[in-house]
Amino acid sequence: MELNFRSDNESPAAPAILDAVVKANQGTAWAYAEDQWSTLLEQAFSDLFGTRTTVIPLSTGTAANSIALASVTPPWGAVYCHRNAHILNDEGGAPEFFGSGLRLVPVDGDDGKFDARSMEELIHRNSGHGVHSYMPAAVSITQSSESGTVYVPEEIQAINELARSKNMATHMDGARFGNAVARLGCEPADLTWRAGVEMLSFGASKNGCLAAEALLLFDNPGGRDTVERLRKRSGHLLSKMRYVSAQLLAYINDGLWLDMAAHANQQAAAFAKAIDSHPGASLEFPVEANEVFVRWTPAGLKSLEESGVQFLYWPGRDDLARFVFSHCTSDEETSYLCRTAGGIPG
Amino acid sequence: MELNFRSDNESPAAPAILDAVVKANQGTAWAYAEDQWSTLLEQAFSDLFGTRTTVIPLSTGTAANSIALASVTPPWGAVYCHRNAHILNDEGGAPEFFGSGLRLVPVDGDDGKFDARSMEELIHRNSGHGVHSYMPAAVSITQSSESGTVYVPEEIQAINELARSKNMATHMDGARFGNAVARLGCEPADLTWRAGVEMLSFGASKNGCLAAEALLLFDNPGGRDTVERLRKRSGHLLSKMRYVSAQLLAYINDGLWLDMAAHANQQAAAFAKAIDSHPGASLEFPVEANEVFVRWTPAGLKSLEESGVQFLYWPGRDDLARFVFSHCTSDEETSYLCRTAGGIPG
Amino acid sequence: MELNFRSDNESPAAPAILDAVVKANQGTAWAYAEDQWSTLLEQAFSDLFGTRTTVIPLSTGTAANSIALASVTPPWGAVYCHRNAHILNDEGGAPEFFGSGLRLVPVDGDDGKFDARSMEELIHRNSGHGVHSYMPAAVSITQSSESGTVYVPEEIQAINELARSKNMATHMDGARFGNAVARLGCEPADLTWRAGVEMLSFGASKNGCLAAEALLLFDNPGGRDTVERLRKRSGHLLSKMRYVSAQLLAYINDGLWLDMAAHANQQAAAFAKAIDSHPGASLEFPVEANEVFVRWTPAGLKSLEESGVQFLYWPGRDDLARFVFSHCTSDEETSYLCRTAGGIPG
Amino acid sequence: MELNFRSDNESPAAPAILDAVVKANQGTAWAYAEDQWSTLLEQAFSDLFGTRTTVIPLSTGTAANSIALASVTPPWGAVYCHRNAHILNDEGGAPEFFGSGLRLVPVDGDDGKFDARSMEELIHRNSGHGVHSYMPAAVSITQSSESGTVYVPEEIQAINELARSKNMATHMDGARFGNAVARLGCEPADLTWRAGVEMLSFGASKNGCLAAEALLLFDNPGGRDTVERLRKRSGHLLSKMRYVSAQLLAYINDGLWLDMAAHANQQAAAFAKAIDSHPGASLEFPVEANEVFVRWTPAGLKSLEESGVQFLYWPGRDDLARFVFSHCTSDEETSYLCRTAGGIPG
Repeated sequence: MELNFRSDNESPAAPAILDAVVKANQGTAWAYAEDQWSTLLEQAFSDLFGTRTTVIPLSTGTAANSIALASVTPPWGAVYCHRNAHILNDEGGAPEFFGSGLRLVPVDGDDGKFDARSMEELIHRNSGHGVHSYMPAAVSITQSSESGTVYVPEEIQAINELARSKNMATHMDGARFGNAVARLGCEPADLTWRAGVEMLSFGASKNGCLAAEALLLFDNPGGRDTVERLRKRSGHLLSKMRYVSAQLLAYINDGLWLDMAAHANQQAAAFAKAIDSHPGASLEFPVEANEVFVRWTPAGLKSLEESGVQFLYWPGRDDLARFVFSHCTSDEETSYLCRTAGGIPG
Repeated sequence: MELNFRSDNESPAAPAILDAVVKANQGTAWAYAEDQWSTLLEQAFSDLFGTRTTVIPLSTGTAANSIALASVTPPWGAVYCHRNAHILNDEGGAPEFFGSGLRLVPVDGDDGKFDARSMEELIHRNSGHGVHSYMPAAVSITQSSESGTVYVPEEIQAINELARSKNMATHMDGARFGNAVARLGCEPADLTWRAGVEMLSFGASKNGCLAAEALLLFDNPGGRDTVERLRKRSGHLLSKMRYVSAQLLAYINDGLWLDMAAHANQQAAAFAKAIDSHPGASLEFPVEANEVFVRWTPAGLKSLEESGVQFLYWPGRDDLARFVFSHCTSDEETSYLCRTAGGIPG
Repeated sequence: MELNFRSDNESPAAPAILDAVVKANQGTAWAYAEDQWSTLLEQAFSDLFGTRTTVIPLSTGTAANSIALASVTPPWGAVYCHRNAHILNDEGGAPEFFGSGLRLVPVDGDDGKFDARSMEELIHRNSGHGVHSYMPAAVSITQSSESGTVYVPEEIQAINELARSKNMATHMDGARFGNAVARLGCEPADLTWRAGVEMLSFGASKNGCLAAEALLLFDNPGGRDTVERLRKRSGHLLSKMRYVSAQLLAYINDGLWLDMAAHANQQAAAFAKAIDSHPGASLEFPVEANEVFVRWTPAGLKSLEESGVQFLYWPGRDDLARFVFSHCTSDEETSYLCRTAGGIPG
Repeated sequence: MELNFRSDNESPAAPAILDAVVKANQGTAWAYAEDQWSTLLEQAFSDLFGTRTTVIPLSTGTAANSIALASVTPPWGAVYCHRNAHILNDEGGAPEFFGSGLRLVPVDGDDGKFDARSMEELIHRNSGHGVHSYMPAAVSITQSSESGTVYVPEEIQAINELARSKNMATHMDGARFGNAVARLGCEPADLTWRAGVEMLSFGASKNGCLAAEALLLFDNPGGRDTVERLRKRSGHLLSKMRYVSAQLLAYINDGLWLDMAAHANQQAAAFAKAIDSHPGASLEFPVEANEVFVRWTPAGLKSLEESGVQFLYWPGRDDLARFVFSHCTSDEETSYLCRTAGGIPG
């Protein structure tokens, strides 16, 4: 048996999503997001979030993050984010590229999350020298985090209050936003505009779509022009956008996205439980979404790998591994994983 | 009856392409173009072109063009192209963005094509002042052109010879490459590497795909690193690339792409014939691919529009219109168009 | 005798300017334009222009132009300028660099000047396609022009009115601004803020300084932060700015700059008169400032060159030459030039 | 008595340097560094360094550093430097700007210096993920460091060996290079090309010039074109470059630069001795060049400030201050400083 827990972005699309693509393939449709699917997005997302929402459909999360940050940060502006943030470590410098040389400033923090205080100290240290320093311009919060943990609304609010006091914009990288909402059982609004988030990279590809993301702006219709300019200029305005928009509509229809995220979270929780009771392996971070980070001996991890289980090692480490569960990880697969790991002595 | 001749990028995907996407949706697949479809691309395209071909799957032509040009042009380099080129007028400055401020230099030429002599005069005039001037770095040829015409191999060779003599790279924007190959009945190689073209933006979205393009590098494996860096950095490395690659494989399988392009060309030819014999309307450019440019009285064009035929006006003109035919334009639709136009007095 | 009429930027500094530099070399002075000379600039220039003027001292005109344009133009914005403008042809792409890939759009026009109508037509043709097109963002007027001609206030106003109606900013490249003011005998204000110019690159290096320019913003204190950020970020915030500021203060003190410019203009006029009566040579453009463009046979120009007179040929031409006169061109030198040219048969 | 120990860039120019500027002000001279002073630079610096040296005269160190780094680093490349480096904290993002979004990676290390091992660990951690990561491209060493310490040749060699093994270029920010050479009593070559440094930002403004720096490339004539393109494109090619080049020639003539640097170092050493024996104040870093960092009670520093001594506080700290000594700090000034500090109780 070959099992892939490397990443949720290696999962296939959900049947309902694929069906939506197939159904969208009827007749001609105006290009460049003027089709009948794309024009439904704003109402659908405004309903979902309970406020007026500008929707920019895109095909990658890197594009969503980079367009968002570049739209609020001048070239001499700094974006604060967690030291392990995807925008900092995994996007090949896309934020710097879209933002004409803006700077990302890493903030430390346990369990993949940072807090307002750490950020404030860094701002104090980094930006006291006028034009000689980068100007604090934005903060980006990853939800759920790169460590598989989740920010509660109060944590987001605290960061946002600091940001507002410094005239900084607040962005959320929601590549796994659904997993966070499913975990907390709150409204999408509670984690975003109600907590001060102005822009959300709403991820869908990792959780059941083929390739669909959306950049959302809350209550800011005036912000549309800049993000649309950036989308076109970066080559992200698909001519046949209908296929992306159809995915997004199906994704948020009738709670599908949250059902899928909840399923993935449950699988992760089951594996976490198994690790928790393992004599040799242990959890590196609290498991609050669909990712499980396991610290184990290199020999233990190697045995697991040799048994046909695929996962990723933490960069530069042979004793720390990440397992990601997706909308289509089956109970059988998770059980097999738990049994196999359990069968390897500490 | 509502008929859309606005653009081939408003057509749906061909059934075989959609099927390929559906079939690719099986199980997990490694992300970031390391899946089993993406890894087949190089062999498939190398076979198609008869030489070693590096393939970079992408989801927009703007990305393909911009990555190609940025990979061979320094920020202080100039790219020569036709005055009506898509890269110059329709990509929101993407080439300048990807190329860190490179400059596009428009070259004049009839029927949407330019020749080596016009380009040479411009180079002579523009670049004699050392570091004060932009350095000629690349030329981009649109095939088929924005006017629906086609460069024959000899024309491409002549431009390429000039380019080589100036140490300039040769790029082809092949958003409608299939239409050109179908028109000329030659090998794809004849219009590309055999004529000196080093990089091809191989378009597929306009001709039957959902969203699939490929940047091809001929006999230049060393060029891969830079274009892959640019792809990632611009947010164009899809995690689930399998869906793009599956489209491309189906597209070039068994000549499908050329069959579809030939079909589109034939529809255009039929309409061109109708216009040619029309008392009031006339052809603005030779019709050699799947686009027909009609010069007519504003009243004539308006009547046609009011009869339910959709087309685009030339920017800033009410007496010049573009009709584009696609892989799925039916004989009935074209007949209807011809009849309707024919029924409007000159 | 060896005479240099190649460019006014090959002239030495005026004694009063050099003295100011020497006098500024006393004791320590706070760095980065917080010295006692730099802090006098704003009052001095506000007095000169009769309105509140923000002054950014710089050491090159390229920096002044590029910072000005980048401060008002987004990366997807277009700057309209004359086809022969220095910013377009002679600055190695600095505007594109500072402006993160903005685009310069050349406007045609006789005698080195363009008018509002030509600009309007181009805007109409170039920018009708939303995010697919560059957005018109600024216009740059060269005063005096690259052809040695001068815009009168009404011409500037007409361009500015069009610009305002399109939400475009108005910049003036005043590398030879003094020559224009001296020619027209008007107030500096008449050619700038009273005619709608918002930013002026106030040139001084060509007219008697060692290396001193200033970017001026009129009645726009809020614009300071962006231009100061751009100055620092581009490496143009000299630590010992006192030496630049001292030059500028001496330059505008007691009308020195206009005396020098008037002198240069007079020398040009004298040579223009000589050419006007020459049997073989002729003036290519009206001579309104300190530059004279002479159309002559290649043989005539070559003879002149061989007699020890240095001048520059128009790029790519051997029958068109430019002669520039400076604050320190002596009557004897001009007379010698006139006599020498006069002695060469047509 | 008012004494300024804020920075050596607040000192005036040395008489011999000013004289050179005055003498250069004779007659016309070809613009853009084709004058007779600029054309002497390469021989003069090649003699000084004992190897073929390409010289790019500039007016700021920020320009020198940024041009150097941008010439060897692609937009997706990373430059490693000390956490306190000027390029990282004090240049307003100029390296990112010139380098189209390159990234600076801070390396930790005591006393303002880092070593090869710390850098290697960071490279290992940061760059294992192919196109998703920044590519290590260059290292920049500050000599003397921002903490007033000096790298010995062996330390530079060790860093360079690592850099070479990773295909990274080695740059030295020598804003206070003279102070380092004077300290070590070695040849300039020993700290640069003999230790593997390929590019040196050779500072002169802080040590007796008005505004003069040079970017030096060692044994790399092919590197000239790129740095000259970058210089022009960033507005740093002065038309009247003669005044910069004349400064540089005078600066290195007959050892003037080392005499001035040695003088500054001696003044710093005298103050360091005074602090060392002070009951309340202490030295934060070894004093090896012309900067002294004093840790003291806020009250102690405040008393010193109130007695008329100007210095700078470390960003965000009121108990750590920097005192910089220059070529023109007199023995009397230093004595006064030592006495005054000595008279303030711990």
